Amino acid sequence: MKISIERAVLLKAVAQAQSVVERRNTIPILANVLIEAEGSDVSFRATDLDIEVVDRVPAMVERAGATTVNAVMLHEIVRKLPDGATVALAADEAAGRLSIEAGRSSFSLATLPKEDFPVMASSEYAANFSAAAPVLRRLFDKSKFAISTEETRYYLNGVYMHVSEAEGGRVLRCVATDGHRLARIDADLPPGAEEMPGVIVPRKTVGELRKLLDDDEAQIAVSVSETKIRFATPEITLTSKVIDGTFPDYTRVIPTGNTKKMEVDAQAFAKAVDRVATVSSERSRAVKLQLDEDRLVLSVNAPDAGAAEEELAVAYGDDRLEIGFNAKYLLEIASQVDRENAVFMFNSAGEPALMREGNDTSAIYVVMPMRV
Amino acid sequence: MKISIERAVLLKAVAQAQSVVERRNTIPILANVLIEAEGSDVSFRATDLDIEVVDRVPAMVERAGATTVNAVMLHEIVRKLPDGATVALAADEAAGRLSIEAGRSSFSLATLPKEDFPVMASSEYAANFSAAAPVLRRLFDKSKFAISTEETRYYLNGVYMHVSEAEGGRVLRCVATDGHRLARIDADLPPGAEEMPGVIVPRKTVGELRKLLDDDEAQIAVSVSETKIRFATPEITLTSKVIDGTFPDYTRVIPTGNTKKMEVDAQAFAKAVDRVATVSSERSRAVKLQLDEDRLVLSVNAPDAGAAEEELAVAYGDDRLEIGFNAKYLLEIASQVDRENAVFMFNSAGEPALMREGNDTSAIYVVMPMRV
Repeated sequence: MKISIERAVLLKAVAQAQSVVERRNTIPILANVLIEAEGSDVSFRATDLDIEVVDRVPAMVERAGATTVNAVMLHEIVRKLPDGATVALAADEAAGRLSIEAGRSSFSLATLPKEDFPVMASSEYAANFSAAAPVLRRLFDKSKFAISTEETRYYLNGVYMHVSEAEGGRVLRCVATDGHRLARIDADLPPGAEEMPGVIVPRKTVGELRKLLDDDEAQIAVSVSETKIRFATPEITLTSKVIDGTFPDYTRVIPTGNTKKMEVDAQAFAKAVDRVATVSSERSRAVKLQLDEDRLVLSVNAPDAGAAEEELAVAYGDDRLEIGFNAKYLLEIASQVDRENAVFMFNSAGEPALMREGNDTSAIYVVMPMRV
Repeated sequence: MKISIERAVLLKAVAQAQSVVERRNTIPILANVLIEAEGSDVSFRATDLDIEVVDRVPAMVERAGATTVNAVMLHEIVRKLPDGATVALAADEAAGRLSIEAGRSSFSLATLPKEDFPVMASSEYAANFSAAAPVLRRLFDKSKFAISTEETRYYLNGVYMHVSEAEGGRVLRCVATDGHRLARIDADLPPGAEEMPGVIVPRKTVGELRKLLDDDEAQIAVSVSETKIRFATPEITLTSKVIDGTFPDYTRVIPTGNTKKMEVDAQAFAKAVDRVATVSSERSRAVKLQLDEDRLVLSVNAPDAGAAEEELAVAYGDDRLEIGFNAKYLLEIASQVDRENAVFMFNSAGEPALMREGNDTSAIYVVMPMRV
C-alpha cells in the first residue's frame, strides 16, 4: 500500500476512527485502524467489536493494499503535522511497518496484519430509510441526557428508537430513561421506516453518531435489524450492535392526568434552580417548588450550610402546590427547551411531573418528585 | 454588619479568597472568608495558615462589623448572580447567619465567629521595594515550570528569589530547579531591594501572586523578611511564609564551558520535538538531537511502537554531536522563548546544555541530557 492524502482529510477520518477505539484493550488489534487503499479511495475502519466505523475518503493511491496501525498514535501524529501538508503513507509488509512522511517529518509505526482485523459481519436489515441530519440530531440530543448509567439495568443504557402511535399519526420516536426522569422525542415517520423493529441504541453509539450529524444538509441513510443499526453518509458508515434486551413499557410512566399547569421562562427557571441549589453540597440536591397564583418560589434548605430562596413570575392559576425535585434533573430538562417557554404539568407532591416546550407535544419530559 | 456592594467587585474579591482556601480542611474556620466592614471599605481575608490574602474594596457600609462564611459557597453564589446586580450582605450575629440578597434571590449562610479566624501575625520586613507588574510576571512566569514537585526535596518546591551579581551589576534574580532542569531569570535591581534576604517563594504563592500581576500598569509593593514575603497592590495584599530551607548552590550546575552553539527557530523546534515524541508512549520520552553543519535531526526510537525523525535547518558550525533529552523538558524550555531564536550551547553528550533567547543572558535555562 502506498498513498498520498491531504492532511485535513486524513485527520478527519482518523479522528473518527480513534474515537471508536477503546483506550484499554486486551486484544492488540482492536487498538488499530485498518487502512485499505484501492482505486482512488482509502477507507479507515475501526471497531470495538460492538461498533464499527468506516470512513472512505479520496486519495492518490499509488499502490493498492491494506494494513493496520495504532489509531491513537496515527491520530496524534496527523494532528501535529502542519496544516495544509500532504501526507504519504506507505506500508512495508516485510518489515511490518507503516511509514508516514510529510515535509521533513518521517515516522515509522509498527503494523499488525490486516487479516487479523475483525471486520463486522454484514447483515440483512428489516428496514431502510433516510432522515435529514437535523431530525436525527434532535431525536438523540434531546433524549440522551436521560440514559441510565446503571450497568445492572443494561436495557436502559441506550436510547429506545421505535415506531409509535402519536396524536397526529405514526411517528419515529426516541425514548430514554433512568427511572428518575424520562425523555420522549417524536419525529415524522420517514417513508420506509414503518416496518422498523424497535431497537435500543447504546450510549456510545449515540455519541459516535453525533459526529455524523453536524452538517445540516446531510441526509443519513438508516438501516435497522433486530440486532444492528447502521447510519451512513456518502463517506462514513457507522454500524452498531443494539442492546439485547427489552425496553420497559415507558407509557405507564407518563402521567396523563396532570392538570396543574405552570408556564415559565425556561432560561430564568434554570438559572434560579442553579442558584438556589448552591447552598447544598449534597449530591442529590432537593429543590422545593412552592406554587401560588402566578408566583413560583424555589427554595433549598441545607440545615448545616444555609438556605436559599428565589421568586419567579410564572403563569399558574391552580391550587397552591408544594413539590420537590432533584436540582440536577430540573436543570437538565429545563436546558432542553430551546424555544418558547417550559410548560410543567403537575398533579400532586407525590406524583411525577411532565414538561414540554410550549404546546409542542413532540418532545415531553417526565421527572419524579423528591420528598422535601 | 450590613453592606451593599456591586456584584462584579464582590466576585473579584471572593474569587481571590476562595482560591487561597484549601479544599480539604480539618479546621472548619479555614474554609471561611473573613468579611470586615468599616468606613466605606470592606475587606475579604482568606488564609491556609501559610498564605493570607486580603482584598479591600469599596462598598456602601450601612452597619460596620465582621463575620466569616464559607468562601467557596459564597463565590459560587456570587458567580451565579446576574451581571450588574447589587448585592446586600447582612450578618445576623445572634442567629449565626449571613444573608445575601440580590433582586429576587435570597440566601442565608452559616457563619463562624470572627474571633476564631486566624489572622496572620504582622512582621518586620528587612527590605521594601516596588516593582512593575510585568517585571515580576516575567521573573516568576519564566521560572515556575522548573519548580520541583518532589516533597522530599522541599527546598526546591518554590522559586528562589534573591539578589545576585551578574555581568551588568547586581540583579533581582529568580531561580527554580528540580535537579533535571533549571531556570535563572534576572531583572534590574529595584531601589530598596539591595538588603533583601534570599527567600524561597512556595509554588502556591507563585500561583496566587500571578493574579495580582495581570495589570501591566500596576506597581507592586514587595516586602521581604527571612520568614515572609508580601506583595501588595492598593487593593490586594498577599502575605506568604517562605520555605524554611536552604536553596542549593545552583551556580555549580550552570555550565560555563559550553562552546557548541546552535541557533534555531524556537517555535519550529518545539513543534518538531512534539511531533517526534508522539511515537513513544513512555512517560519520559527521550529525543535524540543529531547536529551537523547547519542541520539538526531530531529522532525518537521506540522499538515496540515505531520511530520518528525530523530535520530542521539551524545555525550550527561546530563538530558533529549526538545528544539526548527528555522531550517534555525540551518542549518546556523552548516554549519560554517569546522573541528571537532559541540559542543552545552544548558541550558533550554527557553534559548539561544551556539555552537562552538570542544574546539575552537575563534568562537562561539548563537541561540535563539523557542517554539515548
